[in-house]
Amino acid sequence: MHVNFLLFPDLTQLDLTGPFEVLARAPGFTIDFVSPTLDPVRSDRGLVMMPTTTFDTARPCDVLVVPGGPGTDDCLTDARWVSFTAQQAATAAYVIGVCTGSLLLGAAGLLKGKRAACHWQARDFLTAFGAIPDASRTCIDGNIFTSGGVTSGIDMALLAVGKMIDEDTARQIQLQIEYDPEPPFEGGTPSTSPPYIVQRCLDATRQRYAIRKQAVEQAASRLAAA
Amino acid sequence: MHVNFLLFPDLTQLDLTGPFEVLARAPGFTIDFVSPTLDPVRSDRGLVMMPTTTFDTARPCDVLVVPGGPGTDDCLTDARWVSFTAQQAATAAYVIGVCTGSLLLGAAGLLKGKRAACHWQARDFLTAFGAIPDASRTCIDGNIFTSGGVTSGIDMALLAVGKMIDEDTARQIQLQIEYDPEPPFEGGTPSTSPPYIVQRCLDATRQRYAIRKQAVEQAASRLAAA
Repeated sequence: MHVNFLLFPDLTQLDLTGPFEVLARAPGFTIDFVSPTLDPVRSDRGLVMMPTTTFDTARPCDVLVVPGGPGTDDCLTDARWVSFTAQQAATAAYVIGVCTGSLLLGAAGLLKGKRAACHWQARDFLTAFGAIPDASRTCIDGNIFTSGGVTSGIDMALLAVGKMIDEDTARQIQLQIEYDPEPPFEGGTPSTSPPYIVQRCLDATRQRYAIRKQAVEQAASRLAAA
Repeated sequence: MHVNFLLFPDLTQLDLTGPFEVLARAPGFTIDFVSPTLDPVRSDRGLVMMPTTTFDTARPCDVLVVPGGPGTDDCLTDARWVSFTAQQAATAAYVIGVCTGSLLLGAAGLLKGKRAACHWQARDFLTAFGAIPDASRTCIDGNIFTSGGVTSGIDMALLAVGKMIDEDTARQIQLQIEYDPEPPFEGGTPSTSPPYIVQRCLDATRQRYAIRKQAVEQAASRLAAA
């Protein structure tokens, strides 16, 4: 099985590095990080990572993984990223969208009539692409695997290994990476967090929300016209 | 607050990228990735990351983070890494060891008489450095914060933000990264995983265990002689 991770500037790196740690441990899986060029790529908060292949040289993949983050919003309105995503997904056996990565799947026309998860602050935007927003942490509809925000990509990748290989392999990886979480605080979703914490998150991301809204509208128009 | 992450070849990248995603979201925190040179660094499973500073140019830090992985075993017997770790820890307000990163803290003489956590497959090695192995997912002894394997670094980083800033800031980050985990399978520790899964992990890492044992013995001798 060959896995291609999309690697774009200003991605949220844990959307990629969480599932990568899981999928890279699956026996026989090979992995590439794909970008337009081989230039280093900086995450939204400053981790610089190297692509291993480019749009021109990337192999078709069995599993396509699309992370999220602020950079996704730029990809939504960039025809190169939208068409590369659509092209790779067309022959992939599985497509995984993590966090707001599902918006790029939507812009590529992959979510029409499908249930999909997304970061809680961007989930409603999925309807612009004809998707049915799903508040679950992990959501499977056909061969499209989408997850909620950031860390949910780890749960999704373990679930995916269970489906793609077998549950024992997923359990072995889960034990290797000691994934028996003990979050120090209750919370982690808008319904389990205190309301004032939810409000602090909303206040802190007002500008990002406005940028994303505009990008989604533009991407949805292009998709409708395609 | 300034945070230095040690970045060495063959590290387990999620030991670094999990805590990084949390600490990078803490208001006012700046972060460097430190390596002997600015050359790219490859994780044990192939993610290539860029250091931002070197041993010679690194700033003293308030928080030192030491990830684990197979590459830690090489660091244990490399005087440059051991002395850099000791030197940085000497002036840091907090020292965080993730996974087998705690072995490097031990080799640097930081764990004598202290309780410390570690990946379950390497935890017993801590005694070679005078530490008291702790089976908890997160363990705090004085200013030394250590965690169990790989993903436990996320729990530890959230806990650390709660201590270093305040709990509300940690809760806000936890909600931003939707850390309300739903592991798809029961397990994730040797006591909660089926015994045949534990055995599969042990069988798969027999060679690594032998290499690590030798490195720990050599590092413990050097520490005793220092």
